[in-house]
Amino acid sequence: MKLDTELALAMRLADAAGAAIRPHFRSGLGAERKTDASPVTIADRAAEEAMRRILKAEVPRDGIIGEEFGEDAASNNRTWVLDPIDGTVSFLGGRPIFGTLIALLVDGWPVLGVIDQPILGERWVGASGRATTFNGKEVRTRACPQLDQAMLATTGPQYFDDHQGEHFMALAAKTDHKRMMMGGDCYNYGLLASGHLDLICEAGLKLHDWAALVPIVEGAGGTMCDWNGEPLHQGSGDHVLAIGDPARLEDVIEAMACHH
Amino acid sequence: MKLDTELALAMRLADAAGAAIRPHFRSGLGAERKTDASPVTIADRAAEEAMRRILKAEVPRDGIIGEEFGEDAASNNRTWVLDPIDGTVSFLGGRPIFGTLIALLVDGWPVLGVIDQPILGERWVGASGRATTFNGKEVRTRACPQLDQAMLATTGPQYFDDHQGEHFMALAAKTDHKRMMMGGDCYNYGLLASGHLDLICEAGLKLHDWAALVPIVEGAGGTMCDWNGEPLHQGSGDHVLAIGDPARLEDVIEAMACHH
Repeated sequence: MKLDTELALAMRLADAAGAAIRPHFRSGLGAERKTDASPVTIADRAAEEAMRRILKAEVPRDGIIGEEFGEDAASNNRTWVLDPIDGTVSFLGGRPIFGTLIALLVDGWPVLGVIDQPILGERWVGASGRATTFNGKEVRTRACPQLDQAMLATTGPQYFDDHQGEHFMALAAKTDHKRMMMGGDCYNYGLLASGHLDLICEAGLKLHDWAALVPIVEGAGGTMCDWNGEPLHQGSGDHVLAIGDPARLEDVIEAMACHH
Repeated sequence: MKLDTELALAMRLADAAGAAIRPHFRSGLGAERKTDASPVTIADRAAEEAMRRILKAEVPRDGIIGEEFGEDAASNNRTWVLDPIDGTVSFLGGRPIFGTLIALLVDGWPVLGVIDQPILGERWVGASGRATTFNGKEVRTRACPQLDQAMLATTGPQYFDDHQGEHFMALAAKTDHKRMMMGGDCYNYGLLASGHLDLICEAGLKLHDWAALVPIVEGAGGTMCDWNGEPLHQGSGDHVLAIGDPARLEDVIEAMACHH
Protein backbone atom coordinates (compact mmCIF):
# COMPACT_ATOMS: atom_id res chain seq x y z
CA MET A 1 0.00 0.00 0.00
CA LYS A 2 1.45 3.37 -0.99
CA LEU A 3 -0.68 5.65 1.22
CA ASP A 4 1.01 8.88 0.04
CA THR A 5 -2.27 10.48 -0.98
CA GLU A 6 -3.97 9.30 2.19
CA LEU A 7 -1.17 10.69 4.38
CA ALA A 8 -1.38 14.08 2.66
CA LEU A 9 -5.15 14.07 3.20
CA ALA A 10 -4.72 13.10 6.87
CA MET A 11 -2.35 16.07 7.38
CA ARG A 12 -5.02 18.40 5.99
CA LEU A 13 -7.61 16.87 8.32
CA ALA A 14 -5.35 17.41 11.32
CA ASP A 15 -4.65 21.01 10.28
CA ALA A 16 -8.37 21.71 9.93
CA ALA A 17 -9.18 20.12 13.30
CA GLY A 18 -6.43 22.10 15.02
CA ALA A 19 -7.69 25.38 13.58
CA ALA A 20 -11.19 24.55 14.87
CA ILE A 21 -9.96 23.57 18.33
CA ARG A 22 -7.34 26.20 19.21
CA PRO A 23 -9.70 29.18 19.74
CA HIS A 24 -11.62 27.22 22.40
CA PHE A 25 -8.74 25.94 24.55
CA ARG A 26 -8.77 27.68 27.96
CA SER A 27 -11.33 30.08 26.53
CA GLY A 28 -14.00 29.51 29.14
CA LEU A 29 -16.14 27.81 26.50
CA GLY A 30 -14.20 24.67 27.24
CA ALA A 31 -15.10 25.05 30.90
CA GLU A 32 -18.83 25.11 30.10
CA ARG A 33 -20.62 22.89 32.60
CA LYS A 34 -22.48 20.03 30.94
CA THR A 35 -24.78 17.68 32.74
CA ASP A 36 -24.32 14.72 30.38
CA ALA A 37 -21.86 12.00 31.30
CA SER A 38 -19.30 12.50 28.56
CA PRO A 39 -18.14 16.11 28.31
CA VAL A 40 -18.60 17.38 24.78
CA THR A 41 -17.29 20.75 23.81
CA ILE A 42 -18.03 23.13 21.00
CA ALA A 43 -14.49 22.52 19.83
CA ASP A 44 -15.09 18.78 19.55
CA ARG A 45 -18.02 19.25 17.19
CA ALA A 46 -16.43 22.01 15.16
CA ALA A 47 -13.30 19.93 14.59
CA GLU A 48 -15.21 16.82 13.50
CA GLU A 49 -17.39 18.88 11.14
CA ALA A 50 -14.28 20.43 9.59
CA MET A 51 -12.74 16.99 9.00
CA ARG A 52 -15.98 15.47 7.64
CA ARG A 53 -16.37 18.36 5.20
CA ILE A 54 -12.94 17.65 3.70
CA LEU A 55 -13.48 13.88 3.55
CA LYS A 56 -16.89 14.24 1.87
CA ALA A 57 -15.41 16.54 -0.77
CA GLU A 58 -12.24 14.53 -1.40
CA VAL A 59 -13.09 10.86 -0.83
CA PRO A 60 -16.89 10.65 -0.93
CA ARG A 61 -16.91 6.85 -1.28
CA ASP A 62 -14.87 6.28 1.91
CA GLY A 63 -16.76 5.67 5.12
CA ILE A 64 -16.49 7.86 8.23
CA ILE A 65 -16.85 6.88 11.88
CA GLY A 66 -16.63 9.89 14.14
CA GLU A 67 -16.91 10.22 17.91
CA GLU A 68 -19.42 13.07 17.68
CA PHE A 69 -21.52 12.41 14.58
CA GLY A 70 -21.55 8.63 14.24
CA GLU A 71 -21.10 6.54 11.12
CA ASP A 72 -21.40 7.20 7.38
CA ALA A 73 -21.10 3.83 5.69
CA ALA A 74 -18.45 3.30 3.03
CA SER A 75 -19.13 2.22 -0.52
CA ASN A 76 -15.62 0.72 -0.62
CA ASN A 77 -13.33 -1.04 1.91
CA ARG A 78 -11.99 2.16 3.50
CA THR A 79 -13.19 3.96 6.60
CA TRP A 80 -11.79 7.05 8.31
CA VAL A 81 -12.09 7.01 12.07
CA LEU A 82 -12.10 10.42 13.78
CA ASP A 83 -11.83 11.49 17.40
CA PRO A 84 -11.61 15.28 17.28
CA ILE A 85 -10.63 15.63 20.96
CA ASP A 86 -9.33 12.52 22.68
CA GLY A 87 -8.71 13.53 26.29
CA THR A 88 -11.73 15.79 26.74
CA VAL A 89 -11.12 15.96 30.48
CA SER A 90 -7.58 17.27 29.93
CA PHE A 91 -8.97 19.74 27.38
CA LEU A 92 -11.58 20.96 29.89
CA GLY A 93 -8.98 21.18 32.62
CA GLY A 94 -6.68 23.29 30.45
CA ARG A 95 -3.93 20.69 29.94
CA PRO A 96 -2.37 20.69 26.46
CA ILE A 97 -1.98 16.91 26.35
CA PHE A 98 -5.25 15.98 24.58
CA GLY A 99 -5.12 15.06 20.89
CA THR A 100 -6.99 14.84 17.62
CA LEU A 101 -7.00 11.24 16.39
CA ILE A 102 -7.33 10.34 12.73
CA ALA A 103 -7.16 6.75 11.46
CA LEU A 104 -7.76 5.03 8.16
CA LEU A 105 -9.07 1.46 8.27
CA VAL A 106 -8.78 -0.80 5.23
CA ASP A 107 -10.94 -3.91 5.53
CA GLY A 108 -11.27 -3.03 9.22
CA TRP A 109 -7.50 -2.90 9.90
CA PRO A 110 -5.87 0.39 10.89
CA VAL A 111 -3.21 1.26 8.26
CA LEU A 112 -2.68 4.96 9.00
CA GLY A 113 -2.84 6.99 12.20
CA VAL A 114 -2.28 10.56 13.35
CA ILE A 115 -2.11 12.00 16.89
CA ASP A 116 -2.13 15.78 16.65
CA GLN A 117 -1.69 18.10 19.66
CA PRO A 118 -2.80 21.43 18.24
CA ILE A 119 -1.76 23.68 21.13
CA LEU A 120 1.84 22.47 21.31
CA GLY A 121 2.13 21.89 17.57
CA GLU A 122 3.08 18.24 18.07
CA ARG A 123 2.13 15.52 15.60
CA TRP A 124 2.83 11.78 15.49
CA VAL A 125 2.17 10.04 12.15
CA GLY A 126 2.25 6.30 11.53
CA ALA A 127 1.41 4.19 8.49
CA SER A 128 1.82 0.54 7.53
CA GLY A 129 5.28 -0.18 6.22
CA ARG A 130 6.69 3.18 7.26
CA ALA A 131 8.66 4.49 10.23
CA THR A 132 6.57 6.57 12.61
CA THR A 133 7.43 10.26 12.74
CA PHE A 134 7.10 12.96 15.38
CA ASN A 135 6.99 16.40 13.77
CA GLY A 136 8.59 14.89 10.69
CA LYS A 137 11.44 13.06 12.45
CA GLU A 138 11.56 9.27 12.77
CA VAL A 139 11.03 7.96 16.30
CA ARG A 140 11.52 4.53 17.91
CA THR A 141 10.21 2.89 21.05
CA ARG A 142 12.88 2.03 23.61
CA ALA A 143 14.14 -1.35 24.75
CA CYS A 144 12.82 -2.64 28.07
CA PRO A 145 15.02 -5.57 29.17
CA GLN A 146 12.89 -6.47 32.20
CA LEU A 147 9.27 -5.89 33.15
CA ASP A 148 10.26 -4.52 36.57
CA GLN A 149 12.01 -1.63 34.76
CA ALA A 150 8.92 -0.75 32.74
CA MET A 151 7.27 2.63 33.14
CA LEU A 152 3.51 2.02 32.89
CA ALA A 153 0.81 4.58 32.06
CA THR A 154 -2.98 4.62 32.11
CA THR A 155 -5.48 7.47 31.88
CA GLY A 156 -7.08 6.68 35.21
CA PRO A 157 -8.34 3.87 37.42
CA GLN A 158 -11.87 5.27 37.17
CA TYR A 159 -12.05 3.76 33.66
CA PHE A 160 -11.64 0.20 34.97
CA ASP A 161 -14.42 -1.87 36.54
CA ASP A 162 -13.42 -3.90 39.63
CA HIS A 163 -12.44 -6.97 37.64
CA GLN A 164 -10.39 -5.00 35.10
CA GLY A 165 -8.80 -3.05 37.94
CA GLU A 166 -7.53 -6.29 39.50
CA HIS A 167 -5.82 -7.30 36.25
CA PHE A 168 -4.34 -3.83 35.89
CA MET A 169 -3.02 -3.87 39.47
CA ALA A 170 -1.49 -7.31 38.87
CA LEU A 171 0.41 -5.85 35.93
CA ALA A 172 1.33 -2.66 37.79
CA ALA A 173 2.83 -4.67 40.64
CA LYS A 174 5.31 -6.30 38.22
CA THR A 175 6.42 -2.99 36.67
CA ASP A 176 8.41 -0.08 38.10
CA HIS A 177 5.27 1.01 39.93
CA LYS A 178 6.87 4.02 41.63
CA ARG A 179 7.00 5.59 38.18
CA MET A 180 3.45 4.70 37.13
CA MET A 181 1.93 7.65 35.26
CA MET A 182 -1.75 8.60 35.36
CA GLY A 183 -3.71 10.75 32.93
CA GLY A 184 -2.79 11.44 29.35
CA ASP A 185 -5.11 9.57 26.96
CA CYS A 186 -3.72 9.35 23.39
CA TYR A 187 -0.74 11.54 24.23
CA ASN A 188 0.79 8.66 26.21
CA TYR A 189 0.86 6.47 23.08
CA GLY A 190 2.81 9.15 21.22
CA LEU A 191 5.27 9.32 24.12
CA LEU A 192 5.60 5.53 24.08
CA ALA A 193 6.33 5.64 20.32
CA SER A 194 9.02 8.25 21.05
CA GLY A 195 10.67 6.03 23.66
CA HIS A 196 9.72 7.92 26.84
CA LEU A 197 7.63 5.18 28.46
CA ASP A 198 7.21 1.43 28.09
CA LEU A 199 3.66 0.22 28.64
CA ILE A 200 0.08 1.45 28.48
CA CYS A 201 -2.87 -0.60 29.70
CA GLU A 202 -6.45 0.58 29.25
CA ALA A 203 -10.02 -0.65 29.14
CA GLY A 204 -13.27 0.92 27.98
CA LEU A 205 -11.75 2.33 24.79
CA LYS A 206 -13.84 2.68 21.66
CA LEU A 207 -12.61 2.18 18.09
CA HIS A 208 -12.07 5.94 17.69
CA ASP A 209 -9.92 5.98 20.84
CA TRP A 210 -7.41 3.36 19.67
CA ALA A 211 -7.49 2.97 15.86
CA ALA A 212 -5.05 5.82 15.15
CA LEU A 213 -2.63 4.62 17.82
CA VAL A 214 -1.89 1.21 16.27
CA PRO A 215 0.07 2.35 13.16
CA ILE A 216 1.93 4.92 15.30
CA VAL A 217 3.07 2.46 17.98
CA GLU A 218 3.81 -0.37 15.51
CA GLY A 219 5.65 1.89 13.04
CA ALA A 220 7.91 2.91 15.93
CA GLY A 221 8.77 -0.71 16.72
CA GLY A 222 6.19 -1.41 19.43
CA THR A 223 3.16 -3.67 19.61
CA MET A 224 -0.50 -3.03 20.27
CA CYS A 225 -2.98 -5.75 21.12
CA ASP A 226 -5.92 -6.59 23.34
CA TRP A 227 -5.48 -7.97 26.87
CA ASN A 228 -5.13 -11.49 25.44
CA GLY A 229 -2.36 -10.47 23.07
CA GLU A 230 -4.62 -10.52 19.99
CA PRO A 231 -4.12 -7.88 17.27
CA LEU A 232 -6.59 -4.98 17.20
CA HIS A 233 -9.18 -4.99 14.42
CA GLN A 234 -12.41 -3.03 13.95
CA GLY A 235 -14.30 -5.78 15.77
CA SER A 236 -11.92 -5.96 18.76
CA GLY A 237 -13.03 -5.45 22.32
CA ASP A 238 -12.25 -2.40 24.39
CA HIS A 239 -9.17 -3.73 26.26
CA VAL A 240 -6.00 -2.25 24.86
CA LEU A 241 -2.28 -2.76 25.54
CA ALA A 242 0.61 -0.83 24.03
CA ILE A 243 4.07 -2.33 24.55
CA GLY A 244 7.16 -0.42 23.49
CA ASP A 245 9.45 -3.46 23.47
CA PRO A 246 7.65 -6.42 21.85
CA ALA A 247 10.02 -8.77 23.71
CA ARG A 248 7.96 -7.99 26.85
CA LEU A 249 4.60 -9.02 25.35
CA GLU A 250 4.52 -12.47 26.97
CA ASP A 251 5.58 -11.10 30.37
CA VAL A 252 2.79 -8.54 30.23
CA ILE A 253 0.07 -11.04 29.30
CA GLU A 254 1.30 -13.44 31.97
CA ALA A 255 1.40 -10.70 34.65
CA MET A 256 -2.15 -9.65 33.85
CA ALA A 257 -3.44 -13.20 34.12
CA CYS A 258 -1.96 -13.67 37.62
CA HIS A 259 -4.30 -11.64 39.79
CA HIS A 260 -5.52 -12.73 43.19
CA MET B 1 4.95 43.01 53.36
CA LYS B 2 6.23 44.55 50.13
CA LEU B 3 7.89 41.51 48.56
CA ASP B 4 8.98 43.35 45.39
CA THR B 5 12.62 42.40 45.86
CA GLU B 6 11.71 38.83 46.75
CA LEU B 7 9.49 38.48 43.67
CA ALA B 8 12.25 39.75 41.42
CA LEU B 9 14.64 37.25 43.01
CA ALA B 10 12.13 34.42 42.60
CA MET B 11 11.82 35.22 38.87
CA ARG B 12 15.59 34.89 38.54
CA LEU B 13 15.51 31.56 40.37
CA ALA B 14 12.83 30.26 38.02
CA ASP B 15 14.76 31.45 34.96
CA ALA B 16 17.92 29.70 36.21
CA ALA B 17 16.07 26.47 36.97
CA GLY B 18 14.41 26.47 33.54
CA ALA B 19 17.73 26.94 31.78
CA ALA B 20 19.15 23.97 33.73
CA ILE B 21 16.13 21.75 33.01
CA ARG B 22 15.31 22.37 29.35
CA PRO B 23 18.33 20.59 27.79
CA HIS B 24 17.38 17.36 29.58
CA PHE B 25 13.67 17.13 28.70
CA ARG B 26 13.05 14.22 26.30
CA SER B 27 16.82 13.97 25.89
CA GLY B 28 17.17 10.34 26.87
CA LEU B 29 18.94 11.43 30.05
CA GLY B 30 15.50 11.92 31.51
CA ALA B 31 14.70 8.33 30.63
CA GLU B 32 17.70 7.05 32.57
CA ARG B 33 16.61 4.01 34.55
CA LYS B 34 17.10 4.45 38.29
CA THR B 35 16.59 1.78 40.84
CA ASP B 36 15.80 4.04 43.78
CA ALA B 37 12.19 4.69 44.68
CA SER B 38 11.98 8.37 43.86
CA PRO B 39 13.21 9.12 40.36
CA VAL B 40 15.84 11.81 40.43
CA THR B 41 17.21 13.24 37.25
CA ILE B 42 20.32 15.15 36.39
CA ALA B 43 18.05 18.07 35.58
CA ASP B 44 16.59 18.04 39.08
CA ARG B 45 19.98 18.43 40.72
CA ALA B 46 21.33 20.95 38.21
CA ALA B 47 18.26 23.15 38.67
CA GLU B 48 18.42 23.09 42.47
CA GLU B 49 22.14 23.86 42.41
CA ALA B 50 21.55 26.82 40.10
CA MET B 51 18.88 28.21 42.45
CA ARG B 52 20.93 27.63 45.62
CA ARG B 53 23.91 29.42 44.07
CA ILE B 54 21.81 32.54 43.47
CA LEU B 55 20.23 32.46 46.93
CA LYS B 56 23.57 32.02 48.69
CA ALA B 57 24.99 34.98 46.81
CA GLU B 58 21.98 37.28 47.19
CA VAL B 59 20.34 36.42 50.52
CA PRO B 60 22.94 34.44 52.50
CA ARG B 61 21.05 34.80 55.80
CA ASP B 62 17.83 33.23 54.43
CA GLY B 63 17.34 29.52 54.92
CA ILE B 64 16.90 27.01 52.09
CA ILE B 65 14.92 23.76 52.07
CA GLY B 66 15.36 21.92 48.79
CA GLU B 67 13.98 18.60 47.58
CA GLU B 68 17.38 17.39 46.42
CA PHE B 69 19.94 18.87 48.82
CA GLY B 70 18.08 19.22 52.10
CA GLU B 71 18.07 22.11 54.53
CA ASP B 72 20.36 25.08 55.16
CA ALA B 73 19.10 26.71 58.34
CA ALA B 74 18.20 30.39 58.28
CA SER B 75 19.73 33.04 60.51
CA ASN B 76 16.52 35.05 60.16
CA ASN B 77 12.77 34.20 59.88
CA ARG B 78 12.84 33.52 56.13
CA THR B 79 13.23 30.24 54.28
CA TRP B 80 13.15 29.52 50.57
CA VAL B 81 11.58 26.17 49.68
CA LEU B 82 12.64 24.67 46.35
CA ASP B 83 11.35 21.75 44.30
CA PRO B 84 13.28 21.89 41.05
CA ILE B 85 11.08 19.33 39.25
CA ASP B 86 7.69 18.64 40.79
CA GLY B 87 6.14 15.92 38.64
CA THR B 88 9.25 13.88 38.02
CA VAL B 89 7.19 11.04 36.54
CA SER B 90 5.68 13.41 33.95
CA PHE B 91 9.16 14.74 33.23
CA LEU B 92 10.49 11.21 32.73
CA GLY B 93 7.51 10.32 30.56
CA GLY B 94 8.05 13.35 28.33
CA ARG B 95 4.96 15.31 29.38
CA PRO B 96 5.50 19.07 29.64
CA ILE B 97 3.23 19.45 32.67
CA PHE B 98 5.82 19.20 35.45
CA GLY B 99 6.95 22.38 37.19
CA THR B 100 9.65 24.11 39.17
CA LEU B 101 8.31 25.21 42.56
CA ILE B 102 9.74 28.14 44.50
CA ALA B 103 8.27 29.37 47.79
CA LEU B 104 9.28 31.85 50.44
CA LEU B 105 8.22 31.11 54.01
CA VAL B 106 8.20 33.86 56.63
CA ASP B 107 7.89 32.50 60.15
CA GLY B 108 6.88 29.20 58.54
CA TRP B 109 4.00 30.66 56.50
CA PRO B 110 4.18 30.66 52.69
CA VAL B 111 3.99 34.27 51.46
CA LEU B 112 5.29 33.89 47.90
CA GLY B 113 5.01 31.07 45.36
CA VAL B 114 6.02 30.33 41.79
CA ILE B 115 5.04 27.44 39.50
CA ASP B 116 7.22 27.54 36.41
CA GLN B 117 6.76 25.22 33.41
CA PRO B 118 10.00 25.74 31.51
CA ILE B 119 9.14 23.83 28.33
CA LEU B 120 5.88 25.65 27.63
CA GLY B 121 7.11 28.96 29.05
CA GLU B 122 4.23 29.13 31.52
CA ARG B 123 4.57 30.73 34.95
CA TRP B 124 2.11 31.29 37.78
CA VAL B 125 3.18 33.76 40.50
CA GLY B 126 1.41 34.40 43.78
CA ALA B 127 2.25 36.54 46.80
CA SER B 128 0.42 37.63 49.96
CA GLY B 129 -1.78 40.62 49.31
CA ARG B 130 -1.43 40.46 45.53
CA ALA B 131 -3.48 39.01 42.69
CA THR B 132 -2.00 35.83 41.25
CA THR B 133 -0.67 36.11 37.71
CA PHE B 134 -0.19 33.67 34.85
CA ASN B 135 2.50 34.89 32.47
CA GLY B 136 1.98 38.38 33.87
CA LYS B 137 -1.83 38.49 33.57
CA GLU B 138 -4.11 38.35 36.63
CA VAL B 139 -6.09 35.12 36.98
CA ARG B 140 -9.03 34.09 39.19
CA THR B 141 -10.46 30.78 40.29
CA ARG B 142 -13.98 30.08 39.05
CA ALA B 143 -17.22 29.88 41.00
CA CYS B 144 -18.53 26.40 41.77
CA PRO B 145 -22.16 26.72 42.89
CA GLN B 146 -22.58 23.03 43.80
CA LEU B 147 -20.16 20.27 44.71
CA ASP B 148 -21.70 17.89 42.15
CA GLN B 149 -20.52 20.29 39.41
CA ALA B 150 -16.94 20.32 40.68
CA MET B 151 -14.14 19.02 38.50
CA LEU B 152 -11.71 17.21 40.82
CA ALA B 153 -8.06 16.40 40.14
CA THR B 154 -5.40 14.31 41.86
CA THR B 155 -2.01 13.11 40.68
CA GLY B 156 -2.83 9.44 41.17
CA PRO B 157 -4.51 6.95 43.50
CA GLN B 158 -1.14 5.24 44.03
CA TYR B 159 -0.22 8.13 46.35
CA PHE B 160 -3.04 7.31 48.80
CA ASP B 161 -2.93 4.54 51.37
CA ASP B 162 -6.17 2.52 51.75
CA HIS B 163 -7.59 4.76 54.42
CA GLN B 164 -6.78 7.96 52.54
CA GLY B 165 -8.16 6.40 49.37
CA GLU B 166 -11.53 5.85 51.07
CA HIS B 167 -11.77 9.50 52.04
CA PHE B 168 -10.77 10.54 48.54
CA MET B 169 -13.39 8.26 46.97
CA ALA B 170 -16.04 9.65 49.32
CA LEU B 171 -15.21 13.13 48.03
CA ALA B 172 -14.99 12.01 44.39
CA ALA B 173 -18.46 10.46 44.58
CA LYS B 174 -19.96 13.87 45.49
CA THR B 175 -18.22 15.71 42.62
CA ASP B 176 -18.71 15.53 38.85
CA HIS B 177 -16.75 12.29 38.87
CA LYS B 178 -17.04 11.65 35.12
CA ARG B 179 -14.68 14.59 34.70
CA MET B 180 -12.19 13.58 37.41
CA MET B 181 -8.67 14.27 36.15
CA MET B 182 -5.61 12.16 37.03
CA GLY B 183 -1.93 13.11 36.80
CA GLY B 184 -0.57 16.60 36.80
CA ASP B 185 1.15 17.39 40.12
CA CYS B 186 1.71 21.14 40.65
CA TYR B 187 0.43 22.01 37.19
CA ASN B 188 -3.13 21.23 38.36
CA TYR B 189 -2.90 23.95 41.03
CA GLY B 190 -1.96 26.50 38.39
CA LEU B 191 -4.94 25.40 36.30
CA LEU B 192 -7.19 25.69 39.35
CA ALA B 193 -5.90 29.22 39.97
CA SER B 194 -6.71 30.03 36.34
CA GLY B 195 -10.29 28.77 36.71
CA HIS B 196 -10.07 25.55 34.68
CA LEU B 197 -10.84 23.11 37.49
CA ASP B 198 -12.41 23.26 40.94
CA LEU B 199 -10.83 20.90 43.46
CA ILE B 200 -7.58 19.08 44.13
CA CYS B 201 -7.18 16.49 46.87
CA GLU B 202 -3.82 14.91 47.66
CA ALA B 203 -1.92 13.08 50.39
CA GLY B 204 1.73 12.29 50.88
CA LEU B 205 2.90 15.76 49.89
CA LYS B 206 5.99 17.26 51.45
CA LEU B 207 6.54 20.92 52.30
CA HIS B 208 8.38 21.49 49.01
CA ASP B 209 5.43 20.01 47.08
CA TRP B 210 2.80 22.38 48.45
CA ALA B 211 4.40 25.55 49.88
CA ALA B 212 4.57 27.42 46.55
CA LEU B 213 0.99 26.50 45.70
CA VAL B 214 -0.66 28.27 48.64
CA PRO B 215 0.03 31.92 47.65
CA ILE B 216 -0.88 31.10 44.03
CA VAL B 217 -4.26 29.50 44.82
CA GLU B 218 -5.15 32.02 47.53
CA GLY B 219 -4.08 35.06 45.49
CA ALA B 220 -6.46 33.84 42.77
CA GLY B 221 -9.39 33.71 45.20
CA GLY B 222 -9.21 30.05 46.22
CA THR B 223 -8.39 28.30 49.47
CA MET B 224 -5.78 25.76 50.46
CA CYS B 225 -5.90 23.75 53.65
CA ASP B 226 -5.32 20.30 55.09
CA TRP B 227 -8.04 17.60 55.06
CA ASN B 228 -9.50 19.05 58.27
CA GLY B 229 -9.80 22.54 56.79
CA GLU B 230 -6.81 23.89 58.76
CA PRO B 231 -4.48 26.40 57.04
CA LEU B 232 -1.15 25.08 55.78
CA HIS B 233 1.93 25.99 57.78
CA GLN B 234 5.49 24.61 57.77
CA GLY B 235 4.47 22.10 60.44
CA SER B 236 1.33 20.89 58.64
CA GLY B 237 0.73 17.29 57.74
CA ASP B 238 0.89 15.91 54.23
CA HIS B 239 -2.85 16.01 53.38
CA VAL B 240 -3.63 18.90 51.07
CA LEU B 241 -6.83 20.35 49.58
CA ALA B 242 -7.12 23.15 47.03
CA ILE B 243 -10.59 24.62 46.56
CA GLY B 244 -11.24 27.14 43.80
CA ASP B 245 -14.48 28.46 45.29
CA PRO B 246 -14.07 28.90 49.08
CA ALA B 247 -17.85 28.65 49.43
CA ARG B 248 -17.47 24.89 48.85
CA LEU B 249 -14.97 24.34 51.70
CA GLU B 250 -17.51 23.03 54.19
CA ASP B 251 -19.10 20.72 51.58
CA VAL B 252 -15.69 19.27 50.78
CA ILE B 253 -14.72 18.63 54.40
CA GLU B 254 -18.13 17.08 55.09
CA ALA B 255 -17.95 14.84 51.99
CA MET B 256 -14.50 13.58 52.99
CA ALA B 257 -15.65 12.71 56.50
CA CYS B 258 -18.55 10.57 55.22
CA HIS B 259 -16.82 7.45 53.98
CA HIS B 260 -18.14 3.95 54.49
